[in-house]
Amino acid sequence: MPESSSASSTAPRTVSERAHRAGGQPISRLMHAALARPELISLAAGFVDQQSLPVEAVSEAMQKLMADRSAALAALQYGTNAGYAPLRERLLDMFRAADGHPATEDDLTVDQFVLTAGSNQLLHLVCETILDPGDIVLCASPTYFVFLGALRNLGLRSVGVATDTEGIVPEALDETLRRYDEAGQLHRVKALYLTTYFDNPSSVTLALERRPQIVEIVRRWSKPARPIYIIEDTAYRELRYVGDDVPTLRSFDPSGETVIVAQTFSKSFSPGVRVGWGILPPALVGPLCDQKGNIDFGSPNLNQHLMFTVLEEGLYEPHVERLRQSYRTKLEAMLEAADKYLAPLPGVQWMRPEGGLYVWLRLPEEVDAGVDGALFQRAMDRGVLYVPGEYCYPSEGVEVAKNTIRLSFGVQPPERIREGVKHLADAVADVLDSATPSPSLEAGAAKATKAD
Amino acid sequence: MPESSSASSTAPRTVSERAHRAGGQPISRLMHAALARPELISLAAGFVDQQSLPVEAVSEAMQKLMADRSAALAALQYGTNAGYAPLRERLLDMFRAADGHPATEDDLTVDQFVLTAGSNQLLHLVCETILDPGDIVLCASPTYFVFLGALRNLGLRSVGVATDTEGIVPEALDETLRRYDEAGQLHRVKALYLTTYFDNPSSVTLALERRPQIVEIVRRWSKPARPIYIIEDTAYRELRYVGDDVPTLRSFDPSGETVIVAQTFSKSFSPGVRVGWGILPPALVGPLCDQKGNIDFGSPNLNQHLMFTVLEEGLYEPHVERLRQSYRTKLEAMLEAADKYLAPLPGVQWMRPEGGLYVWLRLPEEVDAGVDGALFQRAMDRGVLYVPGEYCYPSEGVEVAKNTIRLSFGVQPPERIREGVKHLADAVADVLDSATPSPSLEAGAAKATKAD
Repeated sequence: MPESSSASSTAPRTVSERAHRAGGQPISRLMHAALARPELISLAAGFVDQQSLPVEAVSEAMQKLMADRSAALAALQYGTNAGYAPLRERLLDMFRAADGHPATEDDLTVDQFVLTAGSNQLLHLVCETILDPGDIVLCASPTYFVFLGALRNLGLRSVGVATDTEGIVPEALDETLRRYDEAGQLHRVKALYLTTYFDNPSSVTLALERRPQIVEIVRRWSKPARPIYIIEDTAYRELRYVGDDVPTLRSFDPSGETVIVAQTFSKSFSPGVRVGWGILPPALVGPLCDQKGNIDFGSPNLNQHLMFTVLEEGLYEPHVERLRQSYRTKLEAMLEAADKYLAPLPGVQWMRPEGGLYVWLRLPEEVDAGVDGALFQRAMDRGVLYVPGEYCYPSEGVEVAKNTIRLSFGVQPPERIREGVKHLADAVADVLDSATPSPSLEAGAAKATKAD
Repeated sequence: MPESSSASSTAPRTVSERAHRAGGQPISRLMHAALARPELISLAAGFVDQQSLPVEAVSEAMQKLMADRSAALAALQYGTNAGYAPLRERLLDMFRAADGHPATEDDLTVDQFVLTAGSNQLLHLVCETILDPGDIVLCASPTYFVFLGALRNLGLRSVGVATDTEGIVPEALDETLRRYDEAGQLHRVKALYLTTYFDNPSSVTLALERRPQIVEIVRRWSKPARPIYIIEDTAYRELRYVGDDVPTLRSFDPSGETVIVAQTFSKSFSPGVRVGWGILPPALVGPLCDQKGNIDFGSPNLNQHLMFTVLEEGLYEPHVERLRQSYRTKLEAMLEAADKYLAPLPGVQWMRPEGGLYVWLRLPEEVDAGVDGALFQRAMDRGVLYVPGEYCYPSEGVEVAKNTIRLSFGVQPPERIREGVKHLADAVADVLDSATPSPSLEAGAAKATKAD
């Protein structure tokens, strides 16, 4: 529990323990670097493509909404903690359709849908509702670093579970839970956090055949008096450019007692509208809404009415389809550039995701891609910024792989993506050249990617 | 610390300590009553007048915003934790103008302004940033009950300080701080919470001559290593219908190290747009923004751009002026009805506020106006719903006055307000009639109100 020990420091504190633990997100250092040198090609930011944002759809939906005076008045008034019911009904329908569940197949109801300010707020509310300081959240390793920061802030322990190119490894999850049970610490394990589609940063989509296994393992170690939840982050699900969709983990949990789904319109529509939501186990709906009431007294009602109108008017799906086309081209640009510039380098491997916004890159083990390593500065000198993979590792359980990088293809246009990857390849070559040759560096090693 | 003891219950818990403490806002019981019996005249809800909501202003500003493609794209993208800088600049200008401060008079900068989802989220963030479970927040008594619920949720102690018709009593505040100091507990007192304009529920505006005294007292008991902050809630400041504005407590704290201002557009414009903000002491800006980043990764950018456009286009002040006219009529209706129907009843007193949304009512001491008392049910039978004053008392420090009522005049039209007050007077008369006459009930007692 390194997080808690820092909080019990004897230095005088003028802020809360929680504030003392927070200390900002590591990414801010990168954002400062990007701001200070605007000429850099940032393959770091996880922002969505600015030019693709739905100005016309929002404009049209807002005019429609404001033209109906009674709807407009309702949208400008306070809402409820759970959020605008008609939007939640639509989300229920969309979720059923996506997972191929007819309404009769499980007991899922609209009451289990709670609207939040992006899925980040849903993740925060879930943590506040089920976790106490010192509790453990198991995470696929690597995982979403913003969530790791939020866990640290709350005094929670993040414990990594091994993953491969098919996602979290079921045997590793089972073994981790067994270890905590044997140590008499299983009661501190409250949740498993997973991004099940095009994970940020690993680009991995959890394999279909593993999905029921993961649910079964967690349910087996869970007890009614001390439940273990799965927090299934599906933020990128709709950003699929190749291949077929797969059903959620939630679809393998028909009672809905184990899986919490976190979802958002931030990636598929607009982060500035900031409407996210959760699908909750029935037992958590009341407690989570109580937290929400105390935290912000409900999310902006106007934004919820706006998103409802966007859906009603048929403005959503065409926008997502345009988005997919735009990102597909960018992903292709990044993978082509990787084939051209990174493939010749010895021991460099990368994922070939079918969607999302990221490509995960693994360099030879002796290359430190961390923010204080040789490569990061070298890459900036060459003109490119990336997210060091070291930020994405839970604080316990799995070793940090400092030779990893998250590349984002969402923000830059294709030609800048190609240029950025070339600069990165040049920087890696520089670092490899200057390193003393070591036995572990086998020149010409085949790159073992998922697609290969 | 009764709140903490409930959390350490030995019953099995499947939610966090925090969730265990929450248990919802007491007001939900009233909201259910109102929903179940829609024929009731609700003088309970603190909602703003639905018909007055700014449909035209929002519609016009949104069209303007969406017509400028580059502004629209920015509005639909992620923002920063602190919020949209041009809006914060406007808020700084407005604050200076309202308090009559030229820019040279103190060091207040735009960096001290942080945008939140309503002022409720600002209050929550301040609590998370400066308070640990078991810490003490002093509150004017009675005070805003939603904030009391939020404090309970966080495991904090709310301690009441006596008020009169001029607001919090400086001597009582000094005495309370002295008592904690003598008990060696002053280090647990971290903040004083006050609504300084048309307080919810007491209708009181803190007297001008008390403002510098309150700041001086708190600063005197505060130490750099364990600061005591004043949280000045100014949510209703712009809703003044009579008389002249007075400067904030913040204006008597030129270094800005002590007073945190919480403000919002929810009352003066629209709660559905949900843009609030804080003015923070420099030392709290970073820690509070870190909390915000971990809680929701920033409030909706679109709403901030919208409010900026509303201000830029000159749509805000005319709306507030129309609102003042509408609420002035409603306040007059309530006070006239009180003069007509409540004045004849012995020992009934009420405030004559110059703004806000509430009239605070005090009944003879033997009348229990609480939710389980005779009057509440009787009033519902007569057709009117009110907020029992008992909800508005901190858990320690000052005795709960169960003979008090908060009446809201925001939602109902004038004729319904009159009718509601008449029903209430009838219910009070019923209860007084059925009560055994007691010596403390002096028939014909003069009503001692501020205006009298």
